[in-house]
Amino acid sequence: MATTITILGATGYTALELIKILLRHPNTEITALTSREDTRSVELVHPSLSGRLNLSLENLSPKEIAAQSECVFSCLPHIASAKIVPELLSYGTRVIDLSADYRLSAADIFETWYAEKHPDPDRLGKVPYGLPELFRDQIVKTNLVANPGCYPTSAILPLVPLIKTGMIEPEDIIIDSKSGISGAGRKPKLTTLYPECNENISAYNIGTHRHTPEIEQIITAASGKKTTVLFTPHLTPMDRGILSTIYSKPIQPVTTNELLEILRDFYRDEPFVKIVEHLPSTKDVSGTNFVHITVRVVGNKVITVSAIDNLIKGASGAAVQNFNLMFNYLETTALI
Amino acid sequence: MATTITILGATGYTALELIKILLRHPNTEITALTSREDTRSVELVHPSLSGRLNLSLENLSPKEIAAQSECVFSCLPHIASAKIVPELLSYGTRVIDLSADYRLSAADIFETWYAEKHPDPDRLGKVPYGLPELFRDQIVKTNLVANPGCYPTSAILPLVPLIKTGMIEPEDIIIDSKSGISGAGRKPKLTTLYPECNENISAYNIGTHRHTPEIEQIITAASGKKTTVLFTPHLTPMDRGILSTIYSKPIQPVTTNELLEILRDFYRDEPFVKIVEHLPSTKDVSGTNFVHITVRVVGNKVITVSAIDNLIKGASGAAVQNFNLMFNYLETTALI
Amino acid sequence: MATTITILGATGYTALELIKILLRHPNTEITALTSREDTRSVELVHPSLSGRLNLSLENLSPKEIAAQSECVFSCLPHIASAKIVPELLSYGTRVIDLSADYRLSAADIFETWYAEKHPDPDRLGKVPYGLPELFRDQIVKTNLVANPGCYPTSAILPLVPLIKTGMIEPEDIIIDSKSGISGAGRKPKLTTLYPECNENISAYNIGTHRHTPEIEQIITAASGKKTTVLFTPHLTPMDRGILSTIYSKPIQPVTTNELLEILRDFYRDEPFVKIVEHLPSTKDVSGTNFVHITVRVVGNKVITVSAIDNLIKGASGAAVQNFNLMFNYLETTALI
Amino acid sequence: MATTITILGATGYTALELIKILLRHPNTEITALTSREDTRSVELVHPSLSGRLNLSLENLSPKEIAAQSECVFSCLPHIASAKIVPELLSYGTRVIDLSADYRLSAADIFETWYAEKHPDPDRLGKVPYGLPELFRDQIVKTNLVANPGCYPTSAILPLVPLIKTGMIEPEDIIIDSKSGISGAGRKPKLTTLYPECNENISAYNIGTHRHTPEIEQIITAASGKKTTVLFTPHLTPMDRGILSTIYSKPIQPVTTNELLEILRDFYRDEPFVKIVEHLPSTKDVSGTNFVHITVRVVGNKVITVSAIDNLIKGASGAAVQNFNLMFNYLETTALI
Repeated sequence: MATTITILGATGYTALELIKILLRHPNTEITALTSREDTRSVELVHPSLSGRLNLSLENLSPKEIAAQSECVFSCLPHIASAKIVPELLSYGTRVIDLSADYRLSAADIFETWYAEKHPDPDRLGKVPYGLPELFRDQIVKTNLVANPGCYPTSAILPLVPLIKTGMIEPEDIIIDSKSGISGAGRKPKLTTLYPECNENISAYNIGTHRHTPEIEQIITAASGKKTTVLFTPHLTPMDRGILSTIYSKPIQPVTTNELLEILRDFYRDEPFVKIVEHLPSTKDVSGTNFVHITVRVVGNKVITVSAIDNLIKGASGAAVQNFNLMFNYLETTALI
Repeated sequence: MATTITILGATGYTALELIKILLRHPNTEITALTSREDTRSVELVHPSLSGRLNLSLENLSPKEIAAQSECVFSCLPHIASAKIVPELLSYGTRVIDLSADYRLSAADIFETWYAEKHPDPDRLGKVPYGLPELFRDQIVKTNLVANPGCYPTSAILPLVPLIKTGMIEPEDIIIDSKSGISGAGRKPKLTTLYPECNENISAYNIGTHRHTPEIEQIITAASGKKTTVLFTPHLTPMDRGILSTIYSKPIQPVTTNELLEILRDFYRDEPFVKIVEHLPSTKDVSGTNFVHITVRVVGNKVITVSAIDNLIKGASGAAVQNFNLMFNYLETTALI
Repeated sequence: MATTITILGATGYTALELIKILLRHPNTEITALTSREDTRSVELVHPSLSGRLNLSLENLSPKEIAAQSECVFSCLPHIASAKIVPELLSYGTRVIDLSADYRLSAADIFETWYAEKHPDPDRLGKVPYGLPELFRDQIVKTNLVANPGCYPTSAILPLVPLIKTGMIEPEDIIIDSKSGISGAGRKPKLTTLYPECNENISAYNIGTHRHTPEIEQIITAASGKKTTVLFTPHLTPMDRGILSTIYSKPIQPVTTNELLEILRDFYRDEPFVKIVEHLPSTKDVSGTNFVHITVRVVGNKVITVSAIDNLIKGASGAAVQNFNLMFNYLETTALI
Repeated sequence: MATTITILGATGYTALELIKILLRHPNTEITALTSREDTRSVELVHPSLSGRLNLSLENLSPKEIAAQSECVFSCLPHIASAKIVPELLSYGTRVIDLSADYRLSAADIFETWYAEKHPDPDRLGKVPYGLPELFRDQIVKTNLVANPGCYPTSAILPLVPLIKTGMIEPEDIIIDSKSGISGAGRKPKLTTLYPECNENISAYNIGTHRHTPEIEQIITAASGKKTTVLFTPHLTPMDRGILSTIYSKPIQPVTTNELLEILRDFYRDEPFVKIVEHLPSTKDVSGTNFVHITVRVVGNKVITVSAIDNLIKGASGAAVQNFNLMFNYLETTALI
């Protein structure tokens, strides 16, 4: 018996990636795909699905969605997602929200960074943050999970073990991240046009990117000390991948090998986190749910480097990992 | 004394390339840049010009344009260009038209392929086709030149010498062209978004591309025999460059070396056409006004291969080459 | 009970792709990886396998290989493969040969194109050509299969149905193919260095590429008439993918829709061949074992266009498809 | 009367770029190109020069070189350059050394980082560092200039004005740089093969890159205080360009606008340094000798971002800028 699934907002890259993963999943059936504007066959919207999925996009009400799906993956934009999630939950449908709507624990922080009123403020702070490596216990029993942002996943996974074990200062952390262009979505914009991005690298949103509070919230929780980070994202001429080069300070003198050992211990049983000795490459994790992490001590600095596929471990792969946990399937199903 | 220049439609890639070339030209002064919608500083529209050109885009009437420019380069879309050119000419301003409006010699052919009425049909057939290598005599004395399409330049230059010397059949020619994405313009579209084009090659507009009649017109004139060609353009994941692989048939048995020699003879004094023995690469001509051409005889086929930079020899470089001829400057000025 | 597998020549891209597919296969166990020179852990040779496969490369004799593997995939270069295959077969090990050694049916043709003596000439002509869509009956019962070349797969699949049904002339076919750089292998060479290939497209080996006789052999068999083709490969700036634009002539007047219908009929039950109406893109099949094919009639020409991933359907995916057939697993296992 | 020029080590990317710039220079004549191994026509070594430069590479002695060149550009590797420079200087030939040999002011530092004895240690400390924006006075009267490294140029230009004016601490500076692949040279290596670099970003040589002491030397001189920097280079999937994102600390509270004003003042008369308000892109300076620099104050950090073309302002363009100064030509000749 397959779990029935609807994907909301099925025109974009995360939805496409999600569909591809679910088509490999032996225990799921995609019953509906929604879009508010596009009602074409999914094969026309995503030609890579030609002959693989016989569904058209539909503009469905929450009730219609709930009637045909035990689980909903929301690939809607922020705000739009939180406008529909409460009703879906009320029908007993479980939801994996890939938007930013339920990641932050307080409405005021959300409103500061997103400059809009939150449609469902009371639920904030009660929704597990969908990083199984840190919050598996909460995820297995939730009916709603906030799937993490792509950049936060790449920053939190290397930092938390070193902060929790008291190896690095939670203050004064600099996160210099480089992302492929797919992270900017599928809506045509001058800034993501091929001839603008190709043969080009540039920083954007220095100090103002909306993933900043998400990282700070988890770092603050791990350190028990309110902290801010400096986050500098860059657009890199490639489809996929995030490489985060993260600069922090050791609390006391420490070696590269000691920190590698701490990371290995922390993630020893994790199927998707690989602590490597070499410097990670985004290509090595491209198309996979794996995270590669390493660390170096240079002078008075600790540099951690992590690589993920922004659309998989940074979005749709993590979403299926959460789904597997919530529905009691083997965590790695469809993800190896 | 510099020649004063206005560029119409200054927001796109061909205009940017034109500005960069003209900034290196010792005998020109750009006096105005037009746009119907954008009135920002050109440095904001094209940040690569930061600190290099202190002009804002303006929405100017033909009269205002003519008042400050001896020469106008039109980077407007087709139809839009022919709507303004006649008035500009009436004021004595000379025009280099980078649009398709004056390339075809008959209004009916134009209207078949462009599906619109031509705004200035009487002038068609009287405007030189701006390929100096073939029509230099007409260009030097014209007040309006039709700058060729990028694909036609890449196809016509290798074909015409072999047709004129009776080496290949003018019939049954197949032109398989591969173009960089900048050829599709700077207007945001799903089809030219980075994640759609990168790591991807595909054919488009097979048998229906609007550059087809332009090629056929010149081939027909060269052979004296009405001919059609099969033209298949492809979008290639690179910024710039067109590689055309062209299949034709020898009229009588001939060798690769004989055809190379005919091409060398034909273009012996041309500063921008290089007949090479190796197979051309778009990268070798990228950022230049050069054309690399070679030829191979294989079985009963003649294969010519040409490489150009679509924005330079395929657009703005050719435009300046025409400008140099029209205004009696050294033909290679600003182009080496 | 898993089928035990050894991969010969495990340092290259096809071996890496093969390992990744087999790690998803529920019925296989990789027991050994060979290399004549490299004895490092496979994680160091292919860092994308970090923490996923605990094997080192070994220089093993055929006897040692046979002792631990029911099936051998050979990713060795041509000649090297045929030097070891006979002994492996003699021990009862079944072999999927990804080299060119057993694809051609006659030693003299092999020697003409590969300029070397064939080490195992007597077996030529008796080994099934590993395109399941055409030769499934032979593959299921063989102990050795010749996995097709990447370009031939992209050319044969669209052509054979149209030839067999008498729709197109088997003569005078032009195959203009565009391949990603991974097809050139992992050995460092100037021609495949990043700054030489990026932002560049060029033709190579016009009329002399070794995949030519492989295509001709299958086309000849399909038409019953000895034929040659003109094959022009191009290096395209992308990792993966082959797009083949193929020009042929209809035997009698025919429409695009009629030809689409013939293709659909021919491949109706094939899990990996998708006949599409739009023009195929390599990206749509990237990372998959699918083939997208379409056809257009323009004037007196039939143009078929196909897209594959050169490393999957063009190499390692096809190899696993053959493996599944030979070992009686579901044909699509590990390939969806 | 043109200045006669020989280029040593003419097979690589910096030599090619140098030749292209010099072909546009009205006052130079390239009389010889050297290579120890390659004696082919330069058109075969660099096909982009087809029909543009009729010279073959030669293995020449210093005496032969000096006999035909008033100026030598050395594109030799480190050590190799310093082995030949003294003899060239002894004949009165002036030298622009693009290698690292004369950049550091002390032999012991050189030997620590390059792990070899310096062949000409006595000259160290007396050779001007070829950044005209900082050392023009020394450059105009030298017979030997040490052309800066590409990364150092991108880091020093934004940092020095802020250090000299007491705006930022010279301590604890983090330089996170992203470079195109051409920076790694033209010698075939696995790490710069197309399929290894494309769709990939990774850090390399963290804390150990040889450009580190070069940056530290100039920062130390500017601050009057011995300092170290943390330098993290990254390989980015593009041909050209370096983007450096540099993290430092303000000495006292300061605003973004104040720092922008300081930078504008410092470089007001510099033809190639553009202080911009937007975040720089490598593409905006690609193929040019321009540097784009901006600055942001975020929390307790100052972030400067700079973009250069690593082969032009980071190598051959700077070399010609130095040449123009040394030979009393207009500094911008051939560089606009």
